[in-house]
Amino acid sequence: MSSAVSPLAPTNVPEMPTLAGVKLATAAAGIRYKGRTDVLLAVMDKGTSVAGVFTRSKCPSAPVEWCRAKLGAGKSSSKAKSSKAGTARALVVNSGNANAFTGKTGRQSTALTATIAAKALGCSPAEIFLASTGVIGEPLDATKFDGVLGTLAEQAVPGEWMNAAKAIMTTDTFPKVATATVKLGKAKVTINGMAKGAGMIAPDMATMLAFVFTDAPIAAGALQALLKGGVEDTFNAVTIDGDTSTSDTLLAFATGAAAEHGAPKISRASDPRLKAFTKAFHAVLADLAEQVARDGEGARKLVEIIVEGATSKASARRIAMSIANSPLVKTAIAGEDANWGRVVMAVGKAGEPADRDKLAISFNGIRVASRGARDPSYDEAEVSAAMKNPKIQIKVALGLGKGRDRVLTCDLTKEYVAINGDYRS
Amino acid sequence: MSSAVSPLAPTNVPEMPTLAGVKLATAAAGIRYKGRTDVLLAVMDKGTSVAGVFTRSKCPSAPVEWCRAKLGAGKSSSKAKSSKAGTARALVVNSGNANAFTGKTGRQSTALTATIAAKALGCSPAEIFLASTGVIGEPLDATKFDGVLGTLAEQAVPGEWMNAAKAIMTTDTFPKVATATVKLGKAKVTINGMAKGAGMIAPDMATMLAFVFTDAPIAAGALQALLKGGVEDTFNAVTIDGDTSTSDTLLAFATGAAAEHGAPKISRASDPRLKAFTKAFHAVLADLAEQVARDGEGARKLVEIIVEGATSKASARRIAMSIANSPLVKTAIAGEDANWGRVVMAVGKAGEPADRDKLAISFNGIRVASRGARDPSYDEAEVSAAMKNPKIQIKVALGLGKGRDRVLTCDLTKEYVAINGDYRS
Repeated sequence: MSSAVSPLAPTNVPEMPTLAGVKLATAAAGIRYKGRTDVLLAVMDKGTSVAGVFTRSKCPSAPVEWCRAKLGAGKSSSKAKSSKAGTARALVVNSGNANAFTGKTGRQSTALTATIAAKALGCSPAEIFLASTGVIGEPLDATKFDGVLGTLAEQAVPGEWMNAAKAIMTTDTFPKVATATVKLGKAKVTINGMAKGAGMIAPDMATMLAFVFTDAPIAAGALQALLKGGVEDTFNAVTIDGDTSTSDTLLAFATGAAAEHGAPKISRASDPRLKAFTKAFHAVLADLAEQVARDGEGARKLVEIIVEGATSKASARRIAMSIANSPLVKTAIAGEDANWGRVVMAVGKAGEPADRDKLAISFNGIRVASRGARDPSYDEAEVSAAMKNPKIQIKVALGLGKGRDRVLTCDLTKEYVAINGDYRS
Repeated sequence: MSSAVSPLAPTNVPEMPTLAGVKLATAAAGIRYKGRTDVLLAVMDKGTSVAGVFTRSKCPSAPVEWCRAKLGAGKSSSKAKSSKAGTARALVVNSGNANAFTGKTGRQSTALTATIAAKALGCSPAEIFLASTGVIGEPLDATKFDGVLGTLAEQAVPGEWMNAAKAIMTTDTFPKVATATVKLGKAKVTINGMAKGAGMIAPDMATMLAFVFTDAPIAAGALQALLKGGVEDTFNAVTIDGDTSTSDTLLAFATGAAAEHGAPKISRASDPRLKAFTKAFHAVLADLAEQVARDGEGARKLVEIIVEGATSKASARRIAMSIANSPLVKTAIAGEDANWGRVVMAVGKAGEPADRDKLAISFNGIRVASRGARDPSYDEAEVSAAMKNPKIQIKVALGLGKGRDRVLTCDLTKEYVAINGDYRS
């Protein structure tokens, strides 16, 4: 496994502000990795709202099932449950073991982890949210959390965002954080997020783990709507290898602490006062999603695929994903080859409406193909020079309608094969 | 590009018998490759029936459109056309240039090639079938065939099967041929086939080019039905990289020459006399399809994926293809790692009915996972030893129904990236 940082890592890493109502602590619990942190505890103030979206895998991990069940409690008509519905007191994340395909043991492990955390914090296990990432199929020994989580609960402090982002990494080569500050009513509110990739990345969801926190007072239902609205063009528009993890989890937490300095309480996502917040929230998601693509396993090129002129946005998305997931397109980009023939192939295999004789293809703004053939102005030297750029934009104009979409991916290198041919054993 | 023969190449290459009614010749026309043959002319006797199945790409190559149009003529009600419908006098194949995404020039190129061949043979251009394989988007200069095809028509002889299979290769590391001899009525008939891969291989069709010839007297409609029936579990059950070529072409030719020594004329695929022939015909297709998988670009392992216990055969196929096309499964096999967690991931992402707690997974007959967790009898050393085998069978038992299917693929190696990152430029 390469330990070099991706050449596509962002050069400007933001200073992460503290966020009222959230305290963080990390530890090395020795789950899999030696000599590095592998557990994150995020402690939230009472009254924190929570929302989540998860993998669409038919074989989800035990923590995904745990979180879904706790969020689903909000839909229950039972009054006993509804008092805690949509609220969270803590998030426990471990890296190194995904607790996926671990059967009954896996379910017991999530329950034990939540019980240990709840005891340390004096809350209900139903208010503990869990995420695990790493190898699939190995039993996760939750007793390792005993003691550790108690200590972390005592140590948790507001400013540990970078360490938190580091603790959730697996094959990631850099920690992924993003932040935004925006007005809600007349109050300043903060949004802080972190994510980890870096392989088995495809919709839906298009990441393994991402967590976004805000001090804005947003009710759980509104937060859920915000998250669903934001994920479609961010995390769901990123693919590394077309492989969907069993563990994909995106959770959002709203502590509500900003209400103390005047932020209005928001109960509906359609509230007009939420406009600027929504934009900032989506920008944080987009930033994190792009960082996932920038840290795709073995990536040397960030690839943006834009499909326009499709019969619909959904059709444009399917064509863009067909291009983004094509091993032949991805290896060509790794070879700095503007191989638009392979783009045509990927358009053709998507099964969506496309007319060869109307198709135009550009690489980094240089049109290489139009009207079903090589563009008359095609200049191999010019295009070859453009392909040396670490960011490659492939634009496909179908000329059929107004459907447009954008997807991010990376190239497919020998390093990807090396990382994944020598990961588990 | 590696020139080493795939370690998975068949050790027993059949002696290809002559086939009455077919003559073959090859030449080096300098289309792209230097110092190797790149044109094949197959000349068929008058009265030869033809059938074909093609890529489902929405951007098919000019030769695919040409062949479809000629076969489609059989459906015309025009009597003038129907006299030639479903008949072929020659097949012209070139490697090095796919004549795909070449627009109007490409259509002119196919017409010119057919005209040159028809003139050399004294037949109608509508009886000339064409296939091209190689780079996409480069204009194919058909004037290069002028003279060459005339010479080939004079030189064509019955026994050139291996040279023919060599002339259609691109990144293939070995020529792919198969043969069968079977009784039709009381007469012995022969089936000879050839194919080329070796990347951009996925259903539907799951190969670039394959041609099957027989001296059996089978009418075009019956031949088409035979071909459609045979392709589903052979060429359509092979994937190398999930990428569908714009040029995929499988043509079948029946010269009918065996009628001279008593083979009955067959007009319907359901004719009971065709039973043994159908079996042999499908076996030839299966043999060729397996050879395509064995020559997948950079392949070091032949991978057979069997899914059983699915809710239907179609569901089993989709799950098998999800596994077969997963870069993470393929890289794990390249690393000789029985990483069943990634198999679970691929089952989960297929979107088909699957119950984690009923799932069982075996590698080469060794059960590694059952009932949603690692199998109690799991022995890492035993499994690791099995993974060194050049043929890997992954069996997934879903435990839901009776749906079963089988798909062939290969592993994903650094060599695949090397071949495809340095192919065109």
